[in-house]
Amino acid sequence: MVPRLKTALTGPLQDLERRILERMPDIERWFRAKWHEHEVPFYASVDLRNAGFKLAPVDTNLFPGGFNNLNPAFLPLCVQAVQTAVERICPDARGVMLVPENHTRNVHYLSNVATLENVLKQAGMNVRIGSLIPDLAGPTRVEASNGASLLLEPIVRHGRRVGVEGFDPCMVLMNNDLSGGPPAILQGIDQPVAPPLAAGWYNRLKSHHFEVYHTVAQEFAELVGIDPWLVDPYFGVCGEINFQERAGEECLASNVDWLLGRIRAKYAEYGIDEKPFVIVKADAGTYGMGIMTVHDTAEVQGLNRKQRNKMAVVKEGLEVTSVIIQEGVPTFEAIDDAIAEPVVYMIDRFVVGGFYRVHAERGRDENLNAPGAQFVPLAFESPCLPDLAGPTGCAPNRFYAYGVIARVAQLAAAIEIGELEARSGTPAAAPSPVVA
Amino acid sequence: MVPRLKTALTGPLQDLERRILERMPDIERWFRAKWHEHEVPFYASVDLRNAGFKLAPVDTNLFPGGFNNLNPAFLPLCVQAVQTAVERICPDARGVMLVPENHTRNVHYLSNVATLENVLKQAGMNVRIGSLIPDLAGPTRVEASNGASLLLEPIVRHGRRVGVEGFDPCMVLMNNDLSGGPPAILQGIDQPVAPPLAAGWYNRLKSHHFEVYHTVAQEFAELVGIDPWLVDPYFGVCGEINFQERAGEECLASNVDWLLGRIRAKYAEYGIDEKPFVIVKADAGTYGMGIMTVHDTAEVQGLNRKQRNKMAVVKEGLEVTSVIIQEGVPTFEAIDDAIAEPVVYMIDRFVVGGFYRVHAERGRDENLNAPGAQFVPLAFESPCLPDLAGPTGCAPNRFYAYGVIARVAQLAAAIEIGELEARSGTPAAAPSPVVA
Repeated sequence: MVPRLKTALTGPLQDLERRILERMPDIERWFRAKWHEHEVPFYASVDLRNAGFKLAPVDTNLFPGGFNNLNPAFLPLCVQAVQTAVERICPDARGVMLVPENHTRNVHYLSNVATLENVLKQAGMNVRIGSLIPDLAGPTRVEASNGASLLLEPIVRHGRRVGVEGFDPCMVLMNNDLSGGPPAILQGIDQPVAPPLAAGWYNRLKSHHFEVYHTVAQEFAELVGIDPWLVDPYFGVCGEINFQERAGEECLASNVDWLLGRIRAKYAEYGIDEKPFVIVKADAGTYGMGIMTVHDTAEVQGLNRKQRNKMAVVKEGLEVTSVIIQEGVPTFEAIDDAIAEPVVYMIDRFVVGGFYRVHAERGRDENLNAPGAQFVPLAFESPCLPDLAGPTGCAPNRFYAYGVIARVAQLAAAIEIGELEARSGTPAAAPSPVVA
Repeated sequence: MVPRLKTALTGPLQDLERRILERMPDIERWFRAKWHEHEVPFYASVDLRNAGFKLAPVDTNLFPGGFNNLNPAFLPLCVQAVQTAVERICPDARGVMLVPENHTRNVHYLSNVATLENVLKQAGMNVRIGSLIPDLAGPTRVEASNGASLLLEPIVRHGRRVGVEGFDPCMVLMNNDLSGGPPAILQGIDQPVAPPLAAGWYNRLKSHHFEVYHTVAQEFAELVGIDPWLVDPYFGVCGEINFQERAGEECLASNVDWLLGRIRAKYAEYGIDEKPFVIVKADAGTYGMGIMTVHDTAEVQGLNRKQRNKMAVVKEGLEVTSVIIQEGVPTFEAIDDAIAEPVVYMIDRFVVGGFYRVHAERGRDENLNAPGAQFVPLAFESPCLPDLAGPTGCAPNRFYAYGVIARVAQLAAAIEIGELEARSGTPAAAPSPVVA
């Protein structure tokens, strides 16, 4: 379910938002049934773009790193949801080992870890932070930007159990996206790991996620009675890219061309006066590196050295060998003239809050997950009674639609994780180039 | 779990509060295990008294009537918890029939119903209000004090299913405390009824609740390492009272005498400089009618006509035939010089908020649930990191202890309901007079 949250927009509900709001009981029932079939991820964050005519996820993160950007008023929701999540994974739990990213110099990220630690503690857990930093000599205290102090401890393993010195946790909660692969010390252990190691970025492909999302979105669209395209961005994949060696440029150009054509046709069908564009990004990896906006096929032909360097590498120096070419969804939300996109946070099957990622120097057709982005926590909307049949002046609950689409993406991620686990830890094969 | 809430008190944590806060992981684990053994009530509210040295429930309501007194900021917590509750009872649910009290002239109570309806709707349910008003001709619109409008509809029954015209709900949610007995139209139906009819006040006895609470509190006290008396009020019962005919006065006097003596001994043991008192109230029923504060056995001997009339009848004209004599717990909380007692609200196994019941004209040893009481919604406390090891200036989370004791009472209610249901609808027998 989705708490009533304030959005950047104040205008009347768009047709899509209204349809989703009207079908609320059916949608919630659909989700309940789905969560009986698929194990819900421990947590997730979904980046959305709302173009007014279209509302779609553009990225689904299974190791959310922005809990510190949530409004503190949301923490009780987080705590309540964490209790449900822990109850499911480890009903006898008292101890959770939280495994964060290794970059201890990012003090904002450390604030995220501190917030998460606090949520777990308030949910009644004993929490220790187990670090994967290879040369961590012993317990090490680091300071976060929010004033919190974190104690990072080396992970120790005894047989098939892991923990930190003097602490045998019931479960391991990963907040490390495993771009570098599954750590040996966490493999083959008895304790449950959430999200599972198979969900790490070393193993995930955005194209796989959106392939699953495509299927789930079809079913959702049928339920709500809409054209699936309204919630599902077209995409294609080029699996054998080497930017430095200019390999795969033809595949890239033909996909861009094909996608721009399909988007143009849809825009014509709906009378949308926008210039179609696509986003090219690394198929594996995160952190908004290696991303470009393309309006014309010529832009991906004959990339110069600087452009190629930018696209060639993502986090932890991983080389980009596969890219996803995704329909661009322009955002029509702005806060104080700066372009904004909502990021929705979920724990277990609950929307627990979110924030706007705002970038003053980026356009409405650009990736906002880039240096210079700022975060505006979402606030609760003052409720007014009665809900849907409210008097004039009762703000429409636009955010409900955001929470729904974010959960459709979360459901896709759940199915995706199931498939990755079934492949038992081997990296996911790239799907066929053109899927949508 | 308990959201961080502001309390009326600002002083340092009392020893009891601190012990409870320190044992948080063990306590939460204990509750998780208990909710595997006993079905958690759909919702409950618990009136608490905090004497500083002692923190205890004084009433547990299974049909809470003050959702309108919760801070609107808590509604998302309520919505999230309702989803869990509905999921448990009726996973395929889209439709809930809410059955309120019949008194439509209490516009504040109608605000409670409207708030509950809104929470259910926001949780994705279709909600209709089925009324037990005997002569309700057809759908009738009534206005609540908060501006909401409610449509009361006559309950219709087809075979073993109930609903309202054109609506076949998946479950029936009772917000009617059934002081008048289980309505025939709701008996023997196929749909789940929550809380069950057996939990109605026609069938509950406060003494039975506190008898179960006594057992649960023993176990809890052992877990936390405290004297059970610190969370458990002594009580006795007189089962054959007739105030009008002065029957049972001796039993009352001897119980009062016995309890005052026991309290005096405990006060001496802990060096507490308070005047012991007991509360005499109807063993069945609610709404704070028929309650008196007694400091001396002589006060219950030779009651005058006015006092006897006041004690003789509770809600819906029910005659008082049994009373519980309970150790009085003085409240040491006050808001603006008015005596205050916390009321904690739970949905499913989650604390979702609460408020202070405040009465400017009552003393700290008196019942506050009386005409003239006002309600001060609890606010979230601004969280500070880290939690327990916080720097000076970080407010102690005193409310956590309140949420724990309220949940111990809720657990007792769960066991109590199970026992009432096992007796399959026959009224609970009064336990032996002296139990504590």
